Amino acid sequence: MSEDTERSAAGDALCTAVFMPSGRRGAFPPGTSVLDAARTLGVDLDSVCGGRAVCGRCQVRLSTGAFAKLDITSRVESLTATGETEQRYARIKGLEEGRRLGCQACLVGDVVIDVPEDSQIHRQMVRKSADEIRDLEIDPVVRLAYVELPKPSMEDQRSDLERLLAVLDTEWGLRNLVWDHGFLQALSSAMRAGDSYGGDWQATVAVREERELIAVWPGFKERAFGLAIDVGTTTVAGHLCALDTGEVMASAGIMNPQIRFGEDLMSRISYLQQNERQAPELTKAIQKALSDLAEHVAKEAGIEVADIVEMAIVGNPTMHHLVLGIDPTQLGMEPFPLVTDAGLSVKVRDLQIAINPGAYAYFLPCIAGHVGADTAGVILSQAPHASNEMTLVIDVGTNAEIVLGSRNRLMACSSPTGPAFEGAQISCGQRAAPGAIERVRVDAETLRPRFKVIGSDLWSDEEGFIKDIAQTGVTGICGSGIIEAIAELYLSGIVEPTGRMRAKGKDVDGHPNFVKRGRNYDYVLYESPDRTISVVPADVRAIQLAKSACYSGTRLLMDRMEVDSVDRIYLAGAFGSYIDVKYAMVLGMIPDCLLEKVSSAGNAAGTGARIALLSRAARAEIEKVIRTVEKVETAIEPKFQDYFVAAMNIPHASDPFPNLGTEVDLPGAAFDEAAE
Amino acid sequence: MSEDTERSAAGDALCTAVFMPSGRRGAFPPGTSVLDAARTLGVDLDSVCGGRAVCGRCQVRLSTGAFAKLDITSRVESLTATGETEQRYARIKGLEEGRRLGCQACLVGDVVIDVPEDSQIHRQMVRKSADEIRDLEIDPVVRLAYVELPKPSMEDQRSDLERLLAVLDTEWGLRNLVWDHGFLQALSSAMRAGDSYGGDWQATVAVREERELIAVWPGFKERAFGLAIDVGTTTVAGHLCALDTGEVMASAGIMNPQIRFGEDLMSRISYLQQNERQAPELTKAIQKALSDLAEHVAKEAGIEVADIVEMAIVGNPTMHHLVLGIDPTQLGMEPFPLVTDAGLSVKVRDLQIAINPGAYAYFLPCIAGHVGADTAGVILSQAPHASNEMTLVIDVGTNAEIVLGSRNRLMACSSPTGPAFEGAQISCGQRAAPGAIERVRVDAETLRPRFKVIGSDLWSDEEGFIKDIAQTGVTGICGSGIIEAIAELYLSGIVEPTGRMRAKGKDVDGHPNFVKRGRNYDYVLYESPDRTISVVPADVRAIQLAKSACYSGTRLLMDRMEVDSVDRIYLAGAFGSYIDVKYAMVLGMIPDCLLEKVSSAGNAAGTGARIALLSRAARAEIEKVIRTVEKVETAIEPKFQDYFVAAMNIPHASDPFPNLGTEVDLPGAAFDEAAE
Repeated sequence: MSEDTERSAAGDALCTAVFMPSGRRGAFPPGTSVLDAARTLGVDLDSVCGGRAVCGRCQVRLSTGAFAKLDITSRVESLTATGETEQRYARIKGLEEGRRLGCQACLVGDVVIDVPEDSQIHRQMVRKSADEIRDLEIDPVVRLAYVELPKPSMEDQRSDLERLLAVLDTEWGLRNLVWDHGFLQALSSAMRAGDSYGGDWQATVAVREERELIAVWPGFKERAFGLAIDVGTTTVAGHLCALDTGEVMASAGIMNPQIRFGEDLMSRISYLQQNERQAPELTKAIQKALSDLAEHVAKEAGIEVADIVEMAIVGNPTMHHLVLGIDPTQLGMEPFPLVTDAGLSVKVRDLQIAINPGAYAYFLPCIAGHVGADTAGVILSQAPHASNEMTLVIDVGTNAEIVLGSRNRLMACSSPTGPAFEGAQISCGQRAAPGAIERVRVDAETLRPRFKVIGSDLWSDEEGFIKDIAQTGVTGICGSGIIEAIAELYLSGIVEPTGRMRAKGKDVDGHPNFVKRGRNYDYVLYESPDRTISVVPADVRAIQLAKSACYSGTRLLMDRMEVDSVDRIYLAGAFGSYIDVKYAMVLGMIPDCLLEKVSSAGNAAGTGARIALLSRAARAEIEKVIRTVEKVETAIEPKFQDYFVAAMNIPHASDPFPNLGTEVDLPGAAFDEAAE
Repeated sequence: MSEDTERSAAGDALCTAVFMPSGRRGAFPPGTSVLDAARTLGVDLDSVCGGRAVCGRCQVRLSTGAFAKLDITSRVESLTATGETEQRYARIKGLEEGRRLGCQACLVGDVVIDVPEDSQIHRQMVRKSADEIRDLEIDPVVRLAYVELPKPSMEDQRSDLERLLAVLDTEWGLRNLVWDHGFLQALSSAMRAGDSYGGDWQATVAVREERELIAVWPGFKERAFGLAIDVGTTTVAGHLCALDTGEVMASAGIMNPQIRFGEDLMSRISYLQQNERQAPELTKAIQKALSDLAEHVAKEAGIEVADIVEMAIVGNPTMHHLVLGIDPTQLGMEPFPLVTDAGLSVKVRDLQIAINPGAYAYFLPCIAGHVGADTAGVILSQAPHASNEMTLVIDVGTNAEIVLGSRNRLMACSSPTGPAFEGAQISCGQRAAPGAIERVRVDAETLRPRFKVIGSDLWSDEEGFIKDIAQTGVTGICGSGIIEAIAELYLSGIVEPTGRMRAKGKDVDGHPNFVKRGRNYDYVLYESPDRTISVVPADVRAIQLAKSACYSGTRLLMDRMEVDSVDRIYLAGAFGSYIDVKYAMVLGMIPDCLLEKVSSAGNAAGTGARIALLSRAARAEIEKVIRTVEKVETAIEPKFQDYFVAAMNIPHASDPFPNLGTEVDLPGAAFDEAAE
């Protein structure tokens, strides 16, 4: 032992402990547990059971290398040997070779301790695919704390709550707590039920934001769960996540039951106006659906709904307001003011959502009357505000919500694309479901089509296709199919830049895929005895309107941003995930961009909800970012109309597309199949 | 103008304003309104309409005297003349001669301004009678703020909430607000309904603790109300109060509907134990009763229930827990631990109480398993903790809750008096209602009684008595009647110190008021063809037990406090209010004390609820005091049994009563009637 070794007040030589990867170090009296040392130094080492060798969250490893570099005097026995309690844990729950329980292993000499990733509270989630959650440090909103409580006696008549608060203070450092009313109702019986070994009572409490006691269970409870929800006009998607790891335990999508009050937003708002604002009816329907969804995913994951202690919700402004029970009628009338745009935490019992009654639902903030919490979710997921690139994010739906910017500045608008991209108002259009045509190619020479349908991996001209689709048949065209069909018809010279279909310079009268309509043609994609699936001139017009809305909204933002090009494009939303970005560019739906910089973002709004579910920091981040977003109102921008008209042509008259030009000869050429 | 007159940045001479009674002073540019000047100086000047000459709360008076003393240069015109707006207010709502609206009158010279009592926010309530609320500075938990809100336009698309928050910030200085979920639901339509003159929207919001927006009404709302509730085992009493003045607008008392589950606390707890803890049933019953009570008093006062925005509730621990929906079963079993003893604010909608859904119910803190929020109310009302005198407060009911102490130290216990003091378990006992005997005198010579009944001012031996009570008849003896009867029987020598009735040394056989029972007697107070009302030996025994419990609890506290006498005694509770304190002392129910220092405190628990309703400071005060109260558990104190046995005699064996001794010759003498 070196002469300058630090000594404790009692005169013992202190043990130096260095924690990796943080590098924090300190000196402690021999016998200090690794967990206590970690807590003292603020090292990120998890524990639910509070040091009772029950939860196994505080596992650490004695580091083997680089002692010298860290300037530590190595001693042979630097941690106490594994005792009976730890052996029992290892026997029952298993303990990997070389790992120790931080609460049981105590310092006897100088040590370097490795804290593995899975023992950290704020563990990193690393993005695994484009569709996955972005890199994220989990920063739980709700944590569990296991406590053992001395029973009351005539000498210790403290109230149940006082008894609990005392332990949470001394063992967990939790002070100035508040509590949910339902928590008080449940406390007494939960404490008394957790009496497994006749000594102290055992219970686990859920603490939200280190401030509010929201739930209590008898005994030791290992995990709590959260539910991320994307409330769409048509569908509602939910992911059940473990709040400690972020792991998705179960997912489900259901129809939005409000559909019986109207297919789209405006028809639901009209319903409200005509029925004296029966918002409660629509609210009850969606709240019931959320309860059902929660029950469904809980069952799938094999947990109780009461184990779900937090929600995060995104949705467009109308859905956002309706889930909250706020009448959205004013969102349908100029000047479209929101009732609130703030990020909100609301008790689920006030929303009649049947998860743990102490839980809160966190609603991401809204941006403007047409740009909602769904767009906030998209921003949180794609993080344009954290990027140096000029980033364009388009969440494609009945309206396209468009976000443009970078770390310096962010803008957003909503543009009325109509339902064409979702297969509605298309003559043979349908939702993306088995049987729907989703991919289309047109031979530029023969002008004959081939296609793929959802449910089969084969092209229509490949052997076995008919057999492969025998179950579903070919039932219609979905959004991505109509995009490709029209883009291919354009690339093969059948559709002119103005949108007129006539295969200029070729005689198509008598061609089996052309049916004459006055001076125009229908183009037949598929024909069977029961069904003919065609692209008709009105379909081309509907897609022209939709893509023009999309492009002109984007162009308006670029104009305001004073940029001529963007560095990165994400297409988000159920439809955006399926679209082949090249065809979107062929049609002129999005501005020119390097193709490898254009990608699908999947259900980015829903991903944003998951991020907000798992991270307090992310909530603070999005609430801050949202305040800086400049809202552009397309409806009152005179330029929007000009851009809209100018963008009707395919691709359109106003802009060159150099990045497409390098790959294709426009018009009239097809993509190189190998480049797909 | 003197040379050293202060000047504004623009070079104008500043006007000095001095506000009375606070004496605060400051210099302001000419044209500053009196209200703005007052706010700048932190002068307590009320306003609900925010300076729009609507509410009339900011009335002030130009002071006339003592200019010289205040060292102000008097100028002729020191306030602007009354303008059109102020004239309109005076015309419509009236304005007392000499009064000005502070928001309209502006400084033009040096002034001394009187702020009358009724224009102060924190106005004083002065105690008017013993039964009244103590001197109190009103310190409202909820305040109203009137706002005018610019309507949204395409150029100003801020959300409704953001719009409101901006005005609350600039006009009311309210920042960092939170809001109730129901507030958001009501906001939009309330704002839009307040559109009386086609300009800005008008609305009034209720702000709780300067932090939470809890309610909103269209247009200008002048007053908000609160409800103070005392939930007793048998009856529930409520007072509807104006939150700005403290004025009681309506009061009501109803039976506690839980009575169908058991007359007293223990039988209700037994019901819960036998019926698998059906606490929800008892909870629903009392919550429904509170809603009914609220509706009743609102109707009587001519207001809407939604105008009630705050509640304060007291009750014994079992009632406290049941109103909150907390199972009280454990309160019936040793060691009687409370689930919580904290002061609580709970949303009324979580309690199913139908007042304004954004309102909170504040529950006063509890002290121990048998000493509840009712005792906290008693302490708040009688304020022993603020007194230099050694003060004894006894809240008499089925249990006597006893508080002893002064500003240095406070103790409390509960003592099981049984129901005798309330007229139950007394042979001819009944509740205090018309027809009940409430006062009794016994002539020491003739041993003949006379009495008074509730509903008549005459003694039974006075002319017209029979006619006066023709409606009700004489139906029984209430609590105060039995106390007086037994005390008078003792003073006239009929009841011996041991409790035996035999009129020692006198021959009472054949006496019309004596009926022999073995070696004992019944004493007949009243006889008619239908009814005989007597005091029987078992009644004497029941009162002996009750008074002994009361005294021995008190004695135990005095022992602990190490005092031999008390300086002040309050008897509280429905029964405590009617009792003649001298007889309580004759019986030895309370310790010796100067008679003028013994008084009734009325329903002190309910008064405490009213105080907590009207004053945030009082809530903080009682929560702080409660933490210092030393709890004494009579059940495990061996001395309690000794005191109890010793105190059974009348008055009792252990203590002299010098203060009674000065007035009466004990035993066998009667009080001097003049001294009553």
